[in-house]
Parts: sequence; C-alpha cells; structure tokens
Amino acid sequence: MFSRTAEYALRTTSFLGSRPTTNLTTEEIATATKVPPAYLSKVIQSLRKAGLVDSRRGASGGVKLNKDPEDITILEIINAVDPIERIDRCPLGLAAHGVQLCPMHSQLDEALASIEEIFGATTLADVLDDPAGSAKRCTFPRSPKKTRRTARSR
Amino acid sequence: MFSRTAEYALRTTSFLGSRPTTNLTTEEIATATKVPPAYLSKVIQSLRKAGLVDSRRGASGGVKLNKDPEDITILEIINAVDPIERIDRCPLGLAAHGVQLCPMHSQLDEALASIEEIFGATTLADVLDDPAGSAKRCTFPRSPKKTRRTARSR
Repeated sequence: MFSRTAEYALRTTSFLGSRPTTNLTTEEIATATKVPPAYLSKVIQSLRKAGLVDSRRGASGGVKLNKDPEDITILEIINAVDPIERIDRCPLGLAAHGVQLCPMHSQLDEALASIEEIFGATTLADVLDDPAGSAKRCTFPRSPKKTRRTARSR
Repeated sequence: MFSRTAEYALRTTSFLGSRPTTNLTTEEIATATKVPPAYLSKVIQSLRKAGLVDSRRGASGGVKLNKDPEDITILEIINAVDPIERIDRCPLGLAAHGVQLCPMHSQLDEALASIEEIFGATTLADVLDDPAGSAKRCTFPRSPKKTRRTARSR
C-alpha cells in the first residue's frame, strides 16, 4: 500500500536523522539503507525540493537533514516523494457528483484522512526513538559518542 | 495510495450490489463503471477466485455477487484484487531485526492496521446506502421497481 519510493524516503530520512550533524555521501546512505543508488538520487532530489534535506556537491558536501527530526513529520516525508492524494471529486468524473462523493469514495477518502492524521501526528524523531528498547532502527545506529569512541577498553 | 485495481474492484462490486438479482454482462458493467473492458475481466477473475462474484458464460450467464452486500466487507474486496500487505518482518531483511520491527516500520504497520480496521468494519451494503441522501452512487442507480417501471406517467 505504501510505495517503494515512500519506503525508501523514510529509510533515508531515518538514517539521516540518526546522524544529524554529519554530511553523508549517497554511497554511505545507499549502503546503510539498502536503497539502490540510482533510486536514492531521485529520492534525495525530491526530499531536497521539499526542503527536508540539504544536498551539496564537493569535497565538503554531502547530504543531511535540513530541519531537526522533531520538526519533520512522517506525512511530510511521504508527501515529498509520493503524495497521499485525497479523493476530492468523483473519480468517475460523473457530472452529477462533481465534488460530492458517493458513499464508497467517501469511505476511501476517510481512510486516507486517517492515514494523514496518523502520519501528520508523528515526527521523524518519534520513529528514531525506541522507548521500549525492543527494536533497533532499520539503519545503522547513531554515531558513537566521543566518550565512547575514546573508551578503548569497551 | 489505493491502487487502480482496488478502485475498479470497488466500482464493480458496488455496481453489482446495486443490481443484486441480475446477471450482468461485462459490457454492461464496463459501461456503468467506466472500467476498461480488458482490465475489468481481470478484476472479475480475481473477485471470482475470492468467491465474491459468480461469473458464468453463455446466453443465461453473466456476472453477479455471490453473497449479499451485507456479507462482503470492503477489506475483502480490496484483498481479493490487491491485498493490503502488513509489515510482518524487517523490510531491509536485517537479521538483527527479524520479525521485530523498528519504530518506523511499526508506525507504517500501525497505519496499515488502521486501514484494515476501517475497511473490515464496512460492508458493501454500507457504501451502497446513503443515509444522508446527499450523494449518488458512482454507478448506475438500482433497477427501477416494477411498480415504477409500469407507471408511465412518472
């Protein structure tokens, strides 16, 4: 039901959110998220157009989130690459219906509204956190903290 | 978000539900629902396999619902042609995750569960009815009753 493109965009932003201070190369993102590189470039382009990521070429360039994970909703990420299209008029183009939906299409639109509501109320930060500690993210873990990086004994 | 196939299956069953006692030809259904005939044949085949419609060839043949509209849920119709696939294991195939989803995929699966819940609780009869009388169905209206058919003055 959710497109491959949406899934890839979520993996990408999820990974970027786990490395908020780092400019990442597309190769690094592709490896971590298992998104095919050519597909990833298109996804990043769409996310950039939507203002969700910053992408710069060059030696000091790379890709990173343009906002804090707390300020990006799942809905924004999905809509950046594969927008949820609400049903705002009769899909059959029946003149008698116009913008007034029949019960069936009202029902479908209601389901779409529910999805928008769920995803609009969830931020990227929410899905990066794992209060229960029961499942790891589907991306590489956060960069180890400096204190840990120097603690060679661990 | 909902596939064209799902949309077509809903239009088809909605139309069949509005003519429960009639064997309809695929041409009649295609005209009423605006589903391309070749596409319609595939949709009907899937609905037949799922036991939702009865389809017979021949002079007295045709297509009709195999159950009462009250006994068919929207979920059954969608699942007959384009099943809602819940996320039951890590889509990245990460061995560390297995069947334990990360927060992001849990969130997606939760949205899918909501859709299943909405559509599982709604029957075809529900979307054929229009309590408010505000919108017509996206199919031809029910066959006129005999009393009306003979009332030429109307």
